[in-house]
Amino acid sequence: MAYERGDNPPAGDGVVEPVSLASVGSFEHDADVVIVGFGCAGAAAAFEAASAGADVLVLERFSGAGGSSAQSGGEIYLGGGTSVQKACGFIDTPEDMFDYLEAALGPHADTEKLRLYCEGSVEHFEWLCARGVPFQESLYAEPAWMAPTEDGLMWLGEDAWPFSTLARPVPRGHRPPVAGYGGGLLMDKLVGAATEAGARCHTDTRAAALVVDESGRVAGVVARRFGETVRYRARKAVVLTTGGFVDNERMLADHAPVLLGHGKVSDGGDDGRGILMATALGAATRRMASVEAALTVTPAMACRGILVNALGQRFTSEDGYPGRFSHAALGQPAPWWLILDEEGFAAASAGAPPEHVAETLAELEQELGMPPGVLEMSVHLYNRHAARGEDPLFHKDAKWLRELKGPFAAVDPRVAARFVENRREATGISGFTLGGLHTTVDGQVLHVSGRPIAGLFAAGRASSGIHGDGYVSGTSLGDGTFFGRRAGWSAAEPSH
Amino acid sequence: MAYERGDNPPAGDGVVEPVSLASVGSFEHDADVVIVGFGCAGAAAAFEAASAGADVLVLERFSGAGGSSAQSGGEIYLGGGTSVQKACGFIDTPEDMFDYLEAALGPHADTEKLRLYCEGSVEHFEWLCARGVPFQESLYAEPAWMAPTEDGLMWLGEDAWPFSTLARPVPRGHRPPVAGYGGGLLMDKLVGAATEAGARCHTDTRAAALVVDESGRVAGVVARRFGETVRYRARKAVVLTTGGFVDNERMLADHAPVLLGHGKVSDGGDDGRGILMATALGAATRRMASVEAALTVTPAMACRGILVNALGQRFTSEDGYPGRFSHAALGQPAPWWLILDEEGFAAASAGAPPEHVAETLAELEQELGMPPGVLEMSVHLYNRHAARGEDPLFHKDAKWLRELKGPFAAVDPRVAARFVENRREATGISGFTLGGLHTTVDGQVLHVSGRPIAGLFAAGRASSGIHGDGYVSGTSLGDGTFFGRRAGWSAAEPSH
Repeated sequence: MAYERGDNPPAGDGVVEPVSLASVGSFEHDADVVIVGFGCAGAAAAFEAASAGADVLVLERFSGAGGSSAQSGGEIYLGGGTSVQKACGFIDTPEDMFDYLEAALGPHADTEKLRLYCEGSVEHFEWLCARGVPFQESLYAEPAWMAPTEDGLMWLGEDAWPFSTLARPVPRGHRPPVAGYGGGLLMDKLVGAATEAGARCHTDTRAAALVVDESGRVAGVVARRFGETVRYRARKAVVLTTGGFVDNERMLADHAPVLLGHGKVSDGGDDGRGILMATALGAATRRMASVEAALTVTPAMACRGILVNALGQRFTSEDGYPGRFSHAALGQPAPWWLILDEEGFAAASAGAPPEHVAETLAELEQELGMPPGVLEMSVHLYNRHAARGEDPLFHKDAKWLRELKGPFAAVDPRVAARFVENRREATGISGFTLGGLHTTVDGQVLHVSGRPIAGLFAAGRASSGIHGDGYVSGTSLGDGTFFGRRAGWSAAEPSH
Repeated sequence: MAYERGDNPPAGDGVVEPVSLASVGSFEHDADVVIVGFGCAGAAAAFEAASAGADVLVLERFSGAGGSSAQSGGEIYLGGGTSVQKACGFIDTPEDMFDYLEAALGPHADTEKLRLYCEGSVEHFEWLCARGVPFQESLYAEPAWMAPTEDGLMWLGEDAWPFSTLARPVPRGHRPPVAGYGGGLLMDKLVGAATEAGARCHTDTRAAALVVDESGRVAGVVARRFGETVRYRARKAVVLTTGGFVDNERMLADHAPVLLGHGKVSDGGDDGRGILMATALGAATRRMASVEAALTVTPAMACRGILVNALGQRFTSEDGYPGRFSHAALGQPAPWWLILDEEGFAAASAGAPPEHVAETLAELEQELGMPPGVLEMSVHLYNRHAARGEDPLFHKDAKWLRELKGPFAAVDPRVAARFVENRREATGISGFTLGGLHTTVDGQVLHVSGRPIAGLFAAGRASSGIHGDGYVSGTSLGDGTFFGRRAGWSAAEPSH
């Protein structure tokens, strides 16, 4: 097989074919387990493999560890009765956790992975604590993308319809004590733990291809480092924890075009490399079109108003986990607007003034370029039902329901997104990919034929995890670390 | 490599690994070009390869040729100035055809394939005529899924907004002279032409795996016939024309879950086999989540009423190509309803009485289990604009706009679907998959790395064709035969 092929690869720069072990000859480095990518899944796998006695080497394309995980909010979806939940006065069980996630991550969540994830969640929480990840025993109760406090627990949609009717509503968003983005602290602890357990790391080292022996077993990785080719022998296994593919425009076009043009939630390195390296060997993928999506609105504001599409139609509840209304927005005519009145705006205390204000809805419709009458009808209907404390369309909780009264304001998610993303073309939506390699619950990568590919493991967003069509914050750091650990154990065992 | 592996394959029954040429030993049969599947793409490829002088053998899993194509409506999307278009008084150009299809099959249609498809359309029409496919020189002008007449031309959304503003509106649905389903006649002619050109066919022969030589070139097919393994040597190439994967529940769950539970438009053999056989070698796929979807409503009735979601909200125009409002329905809360008044029902002359009738919209809302007031508002808004000949929400053509007056009727697409699909659980939607193997315009299957896989071609719904997110009737028989022919030429050439 050729070493590097394809002047015009369909799937991104630098993608190469699998390399035969015989053609490699000698290796510059070797280890029992070679892990590709030092985000949350890679760190968890590295810790467990090293703790099991394996000699572990992590390859990281950037100059430091952390990956997209380090730039995230740092929420981890945990439950079933953690000490933080108990201290905050909540009773939780793995069954309630499962019932919520199966619905919220569905339809078509991976129930086998999800069952393990929920049953093992308290143990996983304790594992994180033992790695030094701190969690304060206090609840942040307001709807939010990220808590602006150091509270250790937050709601992630559990108390909103229809989920509140399916499982006992209990908050499960566990977070390090950082106001805002906590992913950096989380990854400091996990990378530190992996390093302390003995895992080595080569930074600035970008994996390019898998090495395969004549039986088809994965035996190493060919990488590039400062323009040089470096070969790594993996005596036991290779673990791909390279992240998703939101940064690979070609893969997005081929597999998840719904995110084309929208903002990217990543560290810039989510180019799908691990997925490509494995599918080049015949690895199976799952749910490559599934995405996380976030509308750039303030949840505490959204629940006090109504979200409407470009026509002025309401299409979602505005409370609960904000990713849920964001995902719904993707299927609606853009642009999307948050309509508020003065009382709602004041109550949300969000600061920046709204982009459009008008005395009447007819004026606001005209200003927003909506067809006449639709927004007026939407608000009229909302008010009619809200007056009775009801929302028969989308079942927003009664505590947020109140008749909206003029003057009215329209918040444009594109304006905030321009600021966050620093680009004029911001759509108001940003996201990342959820689909990836099809793996067993132990992280073994499956071939299209159904057999595991010997010596090859994956976890995190390079794999398809617990998700179906839906998403909840903390389930990516959650399944990345949970199944990253399992992949690490399995990779360190000589039996695979 | 093992011959048959995986007790629990993730991707359907009987999927096997690629087989090395060395391990096969002898072959029961050989040909220059082995084509897998005798639907429209297989027939077109077989004709061209045989006409180019190649010895061609087609493997067909069922007892007779035709595939899902033979059970289809038989519409073929053709234009650019065919003799049928001219005889019906329409002026068309490849540019107008391209502009329409790029928009209607998009966003993200394959513009390179589409350009060739439109530029070659008149020649392709003439090729079909030369193969004996008859087309009457008359237009069926009513909106319909399939014309109930022998007319040779029909509209497929070209005259509806926004397309009518993007390209000169010209009908391009070409069809054989059969009232209703014309796919059987079409396939009789194409299979006959391929056979007459010299292509042989083995029926009851189900391909199971590709044979690969030591250079990685595809060199044959291993198939199953009445429980026996039969080996086919392909001296020049293998062409996969096995159809999509709507009949493979596991592949649907992994790649296109939006169709799970809905009706299947297929002959029962669209199990994704060709896609699996090739991806097992590292072949790239594209747009595996894209689907065609059809709501079981009568288009001539739909355009005279309004389509609403489970809440009573309107979400689409009701005229134009009916697949367009069907696809929109997939993204809306189900069940979906067609709301009509007496005048609309009488004008559509559709026969069967509607399932629900009420004097007032409030009564109808209650009967349909809708939240109170929404349907009433939807009709009120529709009427307010229709009175002025406008539909500022979805731009239905003025010729269909009229104030709706009670009594009102609701048509339930599930009822008709139960009859069509013969199952109680019918959802009102049926469809098939559009995604598949990533091919060049000459039908070469691309590896994930970007290089063509030597000796391997694909066309029809086993490949990703001209489509992006959208679909129009006739583009599947259209791109299947058009790119099937190109694959046949290429496969017959010894250079690949």
